[in-house]
Amino acid sequence: MPVFLDTISADFETAFQALLSAKREDSPDVDVVVAQIIEDVRTRGDAAVIELTARFDRLDLTPETMAFSASEIAEAVNQVTEVERTALELAAERIRAYHERQMPTDQEWTDAAGATLGWRWSAVSAAGLYVPGGLASYPSSVLMNAIPAKVAGVERLAIAVPTPDGQVNPLVLLAAQLSGVDKIYRIGGAQAIAALAYGTDTIAPVDKITGPGNAFVAAAKRRVFGKVGIDMIAGPSEILVIADKDNDPDWIALDLLSQAEHDESAQSILITNDTEFGQAVAQAVETRLETLQRRAIAGASWRDFGAVITVRNLEEAATLSNRIAPEHLELCVADPVALSKHTIHAGAIFLGQYTPEAIGDYVGGPNHVLPTARSARFSSGLSVMDFLKRTTLSQMTPEALRAIGPAAEILARSESLEAHGLSVTARLKRLNG
Amino acid sequence: MPVFLDTISADFETAFQALLSAKREDSPDVDVVVAQIIEDVRTRGDAAVIELTARFDRLDLTPETMAFSASEIAEAVNQVTEVERTALELAAERIRAYHERQMPTDQEWTDAAGATLGWRWSAVSAAGLYVPGGLASYPSSVLMNAIPAKVAGVERLAIAVPTPDGQVNPLVLLAAQLSGVDKIYRIGGAQAIAALAYGTDTIAPVDKITGPGNAFVAAAKRRVFGKVGIDMIAGPSEILVIADKDNDPDWIALDLLSQAEHDESAQSILITNDTEFGQAVAQAVETRLETLQRRAIAGASWRDFGAVITVRNLEEAATLSNRIAPEHLELCVADPVALSKHTIHAGAIFLGQYTPEAIGDYVGGPNHVLPTARSARFSSGLSVMDFLKRTTLSQMTPEALRAIGPAAEILARSESLEAHGLSVTARLKRLNG
Repeated sequence: MPVFLDTISADFETAFQALLSAKREDSPDVDVVVAQIIEDVRTRGDAAVIELTARFDRLDLTPETMAFSASEIAEAVNQVTEVERTALELAAERIRAYHERQMPTDQEWTDAAGATLGWRWSAVSAAGLYVPGGLASYPSSVLMNAIPAKVAGVERLAIAVPTPDGQVNPLVLLAAQLSGVDKIYRIGGAQAIAALAYGTDTIAPVDKITGPGNAFVAAAKRRVFGKVGIDMIAGPSEILVIADKDNDPDWIALDLLSQAEHDESAQSILITNDTEFGQAVAQAVETRLETLQRRAIAGASWRDFGAVITVRNLEEAATLSNRIAPEHLELCVADPVALSKHTIHAGAIFLGQYTPEAIGDYVGGPNHVLPTARSARFSSGLSVMDFLKRTTLSQMTPEALRAIGPAAEILARSESLEAHGLSVTARLKRLNG
Repeated sequence: MPVFLDTISADFETAFQALLSAKREDSPDVDVVVAQIIEDVRTRGDAAVIELTARFDRLDLTPETMAFSASEIAEAVNQVTEVERTALELAAERIRAYHERQMPTDQEWTDAAGATLGWRWSAVSAAGLYVPGGLASYPSSVLMNAIPAKVAGVERLAIAVPTPDGQVNPLVLLAAQLSGVDKIYRIGGAQAIAALAYGTDTIAPVDKITGPGNAFVAAAKRRVFGKVGIDMIAGPSEILVIADKDNDPDWIALDLLSQAEHDESAQSILITNDTEFGQAVAQAVETRLETLQRRAIAGASWRDFGAVITVRNLEEAATLSNRIAPEHLELCVADPVALSKHTIHAGAIFLGQYTPEAIGDYVGGPNHVLPTARSARFSSGLSVMDFLKRTTLSQMTPEALRAIGPAAEILARSESLEAHGLSVTARLKRLNG
């Protein structure tokens, strides 16, 4: 049974706090092992990667077979049905169109002092994308990571995807191909992250690593952060649905379950201003759970972390939503646009009852890699910005230096940084002399 | 003596690689201690912060004296000279004007399928800024961190600045006041980062922590990353100057020294297409080092990590610059704008001989918090973006769902996520009658 809360209850605040701080993920502490793996890959390169892949994925590689060959990719891609290919192509096209609009513009201007200022954006040269193997090897995630990188202008884009016992998902390879990925390595775990960050004889190092992974991958990304850029440390998925009574309880139930089925640690929350509607949704969830393929996972998630919260009105709903800062937020109310202006801490907002969150996972266009675990308070979903960096520009004329240089001299002196000041003084002396 | 390299030498590549990979910072491994401090602050809150401040800063605090009072700030600020105040105000005004231009815009559009898509930016609610105590307590850094936060719209901005033995820099408090900082705590080290991240009875938790610090602060920021956002883990400062012979060697020498004087681990590199000019600059550095106040620090940095590289031409200079990916890049050549289009991996570029890097440290306008240690390959200097996050928006009409929903159903099935597919199917069934 999920928890049922009501803001009119005296103990609501305590119960809501408990919901917010529930520890959903019990990550094993793999940091020591991961540190050893990274050191091993740094020291021994390919040999370490090959040994670790044999041990963890039961797969024997050589430097020559570490990456998929063009013919291996073609052969796998040929297994994809036409229906699936068409769907994946539509998704790729829509994701590309959305992300192309994110490209920021350079700026340059000359101010009153005569200083020309501005900035310029450029892409990281090389990026690596981690794709989990097995159950969570999602082609849609390949599109969501690879397309923004290519739109940003990343020249070299590599994928690392473990293939336990040699098993590979043809759709993942097709998604990589549609996105313009340059190289696909069949390696995984902390050893893949280390190889992408530091390089080996076979694997060229990259500048930025993105993509989800298990506890080993997450710990490795945290460790190589600084040497390379990383996207984020993603936690289990979440959805918050704010719905009034003018909704089909079954639709809302399916939206809640579409998060719950991801992972036993996922969290699905409904906020409604109608107690009866909340009960009807909970009932519809139970009905769907009787037949859902992934009912074991979805049922555990809903039972352990699900919640139905009754509020007095939609303002209260918005306030609670901002405290939850959900990864996904569905607004199934009469005026979802108006409500969305108050729900500011959220990774992605889905407006109205015809926008189930699943649309955003595949074909909507916006990215599905989103901040989890309340981090929408301070971070954003993946975008082209993750593959760009900004260089600031400034150019002084002699007049500009005369106008603002003296202030720099004073501040340098106050910070006891004499050479800073002298570098201005020497120039002003010539100009004024 | 700095190293002298020449691209025409047979061993240039080896020597340049050595320069690139020189380990300049020997950070002590403080991770275990920092983990204990964070745990202590999480568990015991104010009491832990007070004990640790007494131990490390020799300062006895109470919950009531943890933050500076308005009258304490006013009193300290009164000690600042008019000349310094005016300079700091000019700096604040110019930094604000530059960063105001960085504010991104929201977007919304309806595409051919009838889907309304877009995104909306919003500020983090609360941010914390770490300011080192002692020698590196720079008022300019307060402006550079606090102003972008306030321009972004951060409602609550707190500073943590240690005051060893109660010593405080009045200019730091004035800079905080000019930037609109809401609260200034006299605490430092890992305990300050922990208190800002997790909160105590006295200190409200924030969503994002920025600002430089020592090894303890850096390790603590790395540990709280995820619970809150952080800016970057900054390393020692660097400058690369590309200069032709039509420059005053003394000016260039002072620019190199203005990085070297920061820190013995700082690195200053000159690339020139004229060997004699390079020698003249090296000579000018030696001359300035005879009298410079911070000659011990600057001399050590120049001797241990300084370099003068002669190249055949400016294309070669640009290629090497991109491999170095410097924090600061000065282009003192006849056409700096043309050259800057090829030097794409750099935190900040200073164009022409009247733009010493020190202008950018104080009054230019662009931020002086910049990516170090080659991280300009994948990251940018601090900006308003660090205090904003983006929420993506999507809204389907019935027609849009009919157009793109079937592809989502197919992809959900291919990923074995049945509820995802059913959430679309249920709606399409109703729509299609």
